Amino acid sequence: MKVALLGATGMVGQRFVKLLSNHELFELTALAASERSAGKKYADAAHWSIEGDIPEEAAEMKVVRVDSGEIMSEFEVDLVFSALPSDVARKIEADFAEKGVPVISDASAYRMEDDVPVLIAEVNPEHLDLVKEQKKRGWKSFIVTNPNCTTSVLALALKPLEEEFGVRSVIVSTMQALSGAGWTGVPSMAILDNVIPYIRNEEEKVEREALKILGKIDGSKVKPADFKISASCHRVNVLDGHLEAIFVELEEEAEPEEVAKAMRNFRGRPQELHLPTAPDKPIIVREEPDRPQPRLDRNAGGGMSIVVGRIRKDPVLPRGVKFLALGHNTVRGAAGNAVLNAELALKEGYL
Amino acid sequence: MKVALLGATGMVGQRFVKLLSNHELFELTALAASERSAGKKYADAAHWSIEGDIPEEAAEMKVVRVDSGEIMSEFEVDLVFSALPSDVARKIEADFAEKGVPVISDASAYRMEDDVPVLIAEVNPEHLDLVKEQKKRGWKSFIVTNPNCTTSVLALALKPLEEEFGVRSVIVSTMQALSGAGWTGVPSMAILDNVIPYIRNEEEKVEREALKILGKIDGSKVKPADFKISASCHRVNVLDGHLEAIFVELEEEAEPEEVAKAMRNFRGRPQELHLPTAPDKPIIVREEPDRPQPRLDRNAGGGMSIVVGRIRKDPVLPRGVKFLALGHNTVRGAAGNAVLNAELALKEGYL
Amino acid sequence: MKVALLGATGMVGQRFVKLLSNHELFELTALAASERSAGKKYADAAHWSIEGDIPEEAAEMKVVRVDSGEIMSEFEVDLVFSALPSDVARKIEADFAEKGVPVISDASAYRMEDDVPVLIAEVNPEHLDLVKEQKKRGWKSFIVTNPNCTTSVLALALKPLEEEFGVRSVIVSTMQALSGAGWTGVPSMAILDNVIPYIRNEEEKVEREALKILGKIDGSKVKPADFKISASCHRVNVLDGHLEAIFVELEEEAEPEEVAKAMRNFRGRPQELHLPTAPDKPIIVREEPDRPQPRLDRNAGGGMSIVVGRIRKDPVLPRGVKFLALGHNTVRGAAGNAVLNAELALKEGYL
Amino acid sequence: MKVALLGATGMVGQRFVKLLSNHELFELTALAASERSAGKKYADAAHWSIEGDIPEEAAEMKVVRVDSGEIMSEFEVDLVFSALPSDVARKIEADFAEKGVPVISDASAYRMEDDVPVLIAEVNPEHLDLVKEQKKRGWKSFIVTNPNCTTSVLALALKPLEEEFGVRSVIVSTMQALSGAGWTGVPSMAILDNVIPYIRNEEEKVEREALKILGKIDGSKVKPADFKISASCHRVNVLDGHLEAIFVELEEEAEPEEVAKAMRNFRGRPQELHLPTAPDKPIIVREEPDRPQPRLDRNAGGGMSIVVGRIRKDPVLPRGVKFLALGHNTVRGAAGNAVLNAELALKEGYL
Repeated sequence: MKVALLGATGMVGQRFVKLLSNHELFELTALAASERSAGKKYADAAHWSIEGDIPEEAAEMKVVRVDSGEIMSEFEVDLVFSALPSDVARKIEADFAEKGVPVISDASAYRMEDDVPVLIAEVNPEHLDLVKEQKKRGWKSFIVTNPNCTTSVLALALKPLEEEFGVRSVIVSTMQALSGAGWTGVPSMAILDNVIPYIRNEEEKVEREALKILGKIDGSKVKPADFKISASCHRVNVLDGHLEAIFVELEEEAEPEEVAKAMRNFRGRPQELHLPTAPDKPIIVREEPDRPQPRLDRNAGGGMSIVVGRIRKDPVLPRGVKFLALGHNTVRGAAGNAVLNAELALKEGYL
Repeated sequence: MKVALLGATGMVGQRFVKLLSNHELFELTALAASERSAGKKYADAAHWSIEGDIPEEAAEMKVVRVDSGEIMSEFEVDLVFSALPSDVARKIEADFAEKGVPVISDASAYRMEDDVPVLIAEVNPEHLDLVKEQKKRGWKSFIVTNPNCTTSVLALALKPLEEEFGVRSVIVSTMQALSGAGWTGVPSMAILDNVIPYIRNEEEKVEREALKILGKIDGSKVKPADFKISASCHRVNVLDGHLEAIFVELEEEAEPEEVAKAMRNFRGRPQELHLPTAPDKPIIVREEPDRPQPRLDRNAGGGMSIVVGRIRKDPVLPRGVKFLALGHNTVRGAAGNAVLNAELALKEGYL
Repeated sequence: MKVALLGATGMVGQRFVKLLSNHELFELTALAASERSAGKKYADAAHWSIEGDIPEEAAEMKVVRVDSGEIMSEFEVDLVFSALPSDVARKIEADFAEKGVPVISDASAYRMEDDVPVLIAEVNPEHLDLVKEQKKRGWKSFIVTNPNCTTSVLALALKPLEEEFGVRSVIVSTMQALSGAGWTGVPSMAILDNVIPYIRNEEEKVEREALKILGKIDGSKVKPADFKISASCHRVNVLDGHLEAIFVELEEEAEPEEVAKAMRNFRGRPQELHLPTAPDKPIIVREEPDRPQPRLDRNAGGGMSIVVGRIRKDPVLPRGVKFLALGHNTVRGAAGNAVLNAELALKEGYL
Repeated sequence: MKVALLGATGMVGQRFVKLLSNHELFELTALAASERSAGKKYADAAHWSIEGDIPEEAAEMKVVRVDSGEIMSEFEVDLVFSALPSDVARKIEADFAEKGVPVISDASAYRMEDDVPVLIAEVNPEHLDLVKEQKKRGWKSFIVTNPNCTTSVLALALKPLEEEFGVRSVIVSTMQALSGAGWTGVPSMAILDNVIPYIRNEEEKVEREALKILGKIDGSKVKPADFKISASCHRVNVLDGHLEAIFVELEEEAEPEEVAKAMRNFRGRPQELHLPTAPDKPIIVREEPDRPQPRLDRNAGGGMSIVVGRIRKDPVLPRGVKFLALGHNTVRGAAGNAVLNAELALKEGYL
């Protein structure tokens, strides 16, 4: 399938370019970005900051404007990946969906719309079916969204607990990486020898999106999961990898070893289907007392596995457990999750 | 009063030296440290790593061995401050107390003994009276201990909440500074571009000590406060200043503004007595959405104030509030707290 | 004297505000900045990022636009400090000088003009006399400039060598701090676990300005010093403090101890005049093998002393010596140097 | 060939383990380390801190003591790689050589001995012949050494210049990575927000070893290259990758483009022989104004290429050029260089 990438020059855009280089199902045919980048070679437009060089085939491509008309007239496009800022995403993603090109988006614009799934392929693959509802908008195709990066890690960690023991409430305190804010998001003077205990809108997103992802399809929309989440989100001086201290009240009492086992054994639809971007194990549980660590564990499973450690009883919450979870915020938390969603949509016959 | 400082060369020892330089009540007469440092000039023995130069009067002092006999024969000593490692502290601190020299200690050795107060002068000044119980050990004098650095910040933040609204349970997730581990505690390769989600024994200390501090004197010992604490402790790449995300279940519902007001208005015995090391405000509440930050706020009130921010409702805990609190771990969390405790003991007639 | 500060919100502007708070000769009466900041309270407009809080008197001042007409009509202004970007500085600084208000500038706009001194009060106080030449421009007053921050440290280190032994050539390799690039100058993702081996235009400035500063007045302009400088400039992950590895070919052979002595004994006009901002020792020479270090030494002499260490023979350059020099880039390298220049100008009767 | 690795648990030891995992010529059969590690599984003994997990075959191996008798009796060993501390290396390396097992060493113990080559396979492959001289020691086999990590980068960068234009003198100012000092070498408190302008013995090694490497065989020893080097060595807060600002006086004038071309075209014996660890290009020259950067360029050519940038005229040195060079200090600067040396020795018939 020929794919266009919107927002190709940013941090998430670059991860898409890397993941789609030599992908067995998708071929990157158009790289689109803002006016400022349009017309330049991708290698000149993107401030490439991912380990390794720019994939050769992308380096020489000319960046085009983020305009559905232009892109559809110049390129054959079967699918669009979007890493656009949310304000821009709202209109342009709808344009593509309306004209018949499916959009797999990392933007937050449509996440909370009733007929749009917020999809983690291992967690809620059945939500994909919601896209049929989007016909009612008069669209020929549809939009599938990714959760916010922090939510991705949290929801994936909670899934086996929800399945095995039930979840009653969740408190999460995060230590998030710089790349989540984009290349210019955090000035070096702001974070050196420091922590910034605030990320705009992040806590609201986490508290809302995770419940939709873990919810059940109920007619034409998702009934959110029936528990509460409280988040406190903080930025630390780490390049990639969001680390989360998670405290969970379960429905049924469970020992730490049972929790570990449930996580270790967890597999989802992508593993069953052997999707190309699916990690063998969505959740890796480590035994060492001082893991997971962002620098050592963020690339586990090619950045698509989350790593959990320090599972222990929580003395405050009823039937409480607490643990640490880590995930690569621009891979599992963004581009990688989107590519996996696209693979799922393709194999399940939605594309 | 003439004071000896045990463990003078470490991170906390250095803070003591700085705080006691030109102190109006205490005069530093002996600097003691391990065998390795003994005999050297303090300037050569200590790896001075605090902003500003070594106080001149200390720089030239000869470091002596940590031995009560030697110290008491060579120096007139009215009081001992101890920044010793706990294993060493156990015997040497008892030696001094037994021989009649009071010990104000930052070591954990005696913290959980029934007849030893864990003291934060603003929080539980009445616990000082426990020292009378130590006579029963056959000691001529006594030991007063400091809480662990993380606990200091937490207990101080909780005190006005306990007083005004009652506290039912507490969850705390920390982002702790490097200096808490000592000069060689954290290798640079371990923490660069990283977080270490584990600090040995720290969570146990926090969960235990805070309840003792917030407890009530009950005959010859402290009855711990009747609630539960759950801690998850993590090390981040920050020089000084422990930042804590705190989630509290109150007894009585309170709005964030009421919580802020209770904290802002909080004053303790040190403020009443105008103790030299007492900050004007034990708790500073900031309104900006992105404060407190370690680098910007750790020196508030000379490192003796804690700084609280982002007070908001917690959606998970019943009558819940959540906020961030920050304190300087080697000042309020260690040496400064000890000096304030000594000042309190002196003014209250215990010394 | 009543002073206005142009460019008050940036890193250098903030240092000016701090240094001018409670200054015995200068009173800050107007804070000017870009359109974006104008109209706001200074505390809201400036992203304050210097240790300690904003000086109270400045915090509440309303920021005005950088416009000579507006400023001169609204405020009594005897002197202007400028921390403007060079492109903006060119016109606005001339406006003030023309209308009779002297300008002490940290901008590079006028540095290389024949009739404008690039002044380090300890190094070339006699260059101040150049300002008389500016009358020929039809200006009622004049502009005095600061060197670039890297040059400040270098020129101050070279001055005693030039005086005592003569200098034939200089190679300098720098490790420069983040604050030199301004608050948003270096993204955190760019510098974490990294060095950026390039600072735009910096090497050219160093190679040119140092020779002018160390040159001699020759009629109506400065004859640059008759030697060559080669610079290689690099950015490291340090908040404040430029560190420079300097290799010098002397005219006359000198032992390291002689070099150290010349530096230690060096005093300038500000020390003779006891100017308020003058450090006791412009150059502090340390003996430890691992000093100077940015974090430990940048605040020496209130940030106005440079710290030199590791003076040793250079085996490559004829009569060569090599050493490290460190200076606070926004104090000695910018705002502090400018304030000292203003103090000199005042005491020498130019203001 | 079956190989033993001495000093297997340290930073360089870990790189050896990674490079020798699945190596087509060498099979790792014994992992030796200090008394403290002996008897443990490698996975438990080594504080693994390299990207990716410990190679499986090594993880389970039992670490043995560094004792030639024990190792040779327990294992079949055709070759020994040594990453030992120099003081330990002196005796143990000689033991192996004497008993007939060749040693390829990263230790400095034997580097300056007349009959021992300091080898960079691309730079001085002909020096390998020196090992024949070691028979005179009564040894059945021989020792080949690696240069110090800083020297490796420097000597490789200078080689094409020496060949094409001749080199008269060299000044080098370094910004070196933390891993060069080993896991506990640099405390985090020492380097955060800081630079340490001193590395013990480093400058002496650089100034001495590079001349031996670039020298010519003269009978039974090496006549050092006939020029001078001056080094100033500094530690920065970077994980891996030594960056060097290099100023060179050439014999013959050369334009920067000619220098770039000489470097780009440079190939050595390993490239001719297609040795497994040889990078395609020993030197990669980049055109961007802000490269090389440690984080972005250290893994070029699998860590075996050095990356050069910013080649420009030097205005101070006669026929001077200056540029930046970067190399991975534990790959090209240590383990990788040693493995390449072993491959060369094998293919050239010395093993």
